[in-house]
Amino acid sequence: MSYCVALKLSSGLVFMSDTLTNGGLDNISHYPKTFSWGVPGERQIFLATTGNLATSQAVISTLSENTKKTDKKNSSILKAQSFFQIARIISQTLSDVIENTAKGQQEGENTFSSTFILGGQISGSPMSLYLIYPEGNFIEVSEDFSFFQIGETKYGRPILVRAFDPKMNFEDAIKLLMVSFDSTIKANLSVGLPFDLHVYKDNSLAPATKYKIEKENPYFKMISSEWGRALKSSLTALPSFNFKD
Amino acid sequence: MSYCVALKLSSGLVFMSDTLTNGGLDNISHYPKTFSWGVPGERQIFLATTGNLATSQAVISTLSENTKKTDKKNSSILKAQSFFQIARIISQTLSDVIENTAKGQQEGENTFSSTFILGGQISGSPMSLYLIYPEGNFIEVSEDFSFFQIGETKYGRPILVRAFDPKMNFEDAIKLLMVSFDSTIKANLSVGLPFDLHVYKDNSLAPATKYKIEKENPYFKMISSEWGRALKSSLTALPSFNFKD
Repeated sequence: MSYCVALKLSSGLVFMSDTLTNGGLDNISHYPKTFSWGVPGERQIFLATTGNLATSQAVISTLSENTKKTDKKNSSILKAQSFFQIARIISQTLSDVIENTAKGQQEGENTFSSTFILGGQISGSPMSLYLIYPEGNFIEVSEDFSFFQIGETKYGRPILVRAFDPKMNFEDAIKLLMVSFDSTIKANLSVGLPFDLHVYKDNSLAPATKYKIEKENPYFKMISSEWGRALKSSLTALPSFNFKD
Repeated sequence: MSYCVALKLSSGLVFMSDTLTNGGLDNISHYPKTFSWGVPGERQIFLATTGNLATSQAVISTLSENTKKTDKKNSSILKAQSFFQIARIISQTLSDVIENTAKGQQEGENTFSSTFILGGQISGSPMSLYLIYPEGNFIEVSEDFSFFQIGETKYGRPILVRAFDPKMNFEDAIKLLMVSFDSTIKANLSVGLPFDLHVYKDNSLAPATKYKIEKENPYFKMISSEWGRALKSSLTALPSFNFKD
């Protein structure tokens, strides 16, 4: 399992993803799960993935290869006119990959499915954020509730539901993500450090600023211990249940 | 889906369960999910259920009917010598119910499975707490981490992992459960009020004290709003991410 969150803030986009992948408990590796393409000044595209690693990698590789082809029929995400069209290209690529993988092969016990969060901006348009389901259909983020989670989403959701606000600045949004990821890794072994962080500034049309949050990252360690302490003291501060109520 | 938690504290057992059941979005009802049997002074048995309502109800009814039969071969949970034996009886009853339901019927799209938490005490023995899986096998709670959750467990788990302590008193344990349930219903529509609360005092061998936490319960409403406020202010109090780190 994985955990990825993408936030659409007034000031830009923030993608955060873990890097742990496992095919069984004794087959653990670290792979990036957020990818990006772009033409500086014209467009920036970010894609976060969860699910079958082989499928995700095949989709990413196909998308990358197609950006380099020059024939006219070719559908490159760097030439598509809108994010809606980019989402359709990714959906079609996903469908092709799954069909090609499954054809003529042994049937696997697990499905080959992957889920994606697509975000970015094309010059002259506002930023976009889409969730692409394993079935290939997709939805755009709502204005009021402008974030998507994929993968192991439940542990880290309550704090996002309570505290997310699209008007947050980057610094506070990243703090919120750190808490959400910390709640997840405290309860689930399949999500783990290091985390990849991509921060895209609205209208910059420049590549995202990237950070790797390693195990020994002092900010994450501080958030983890201070958040645990804050939760306990918040709980202590609440009045206890009274049997006479 | 449902959400039930059972805590084994030094001072006793606490079971809390929601009551919402749904067979589709427009088929919503409220049913109790925690049941009890007992012989005052000799034993008390508590059973919380999630999963298929028909299966759970059939298991509960069969267990209840068998306590009233007088033949010697009959396996009544009120006569079993230990909680290990009671868990085996429930496991066998579950297996019988599923086999009888499935036999000769149309195959359902969903499975008929149920998960149970069994707890209680027999005179002369310490309190017991077991988790009975849909497959019928079961585990006893560990000393260090002495609680079980069943149903929609993930949203409410981080706070339990952080703050549960078997040495808590009943009042604080119920407060913690309220927060865990509140986090769950904030993020998931399939878990809902009212909640049923059963509190059993160690060595009392008397029926549990029961509470129903209704939608308008002032304590729960206070916990829900104050906890939201406390989370936000704890988050605000933490230092923001610094891009120079």
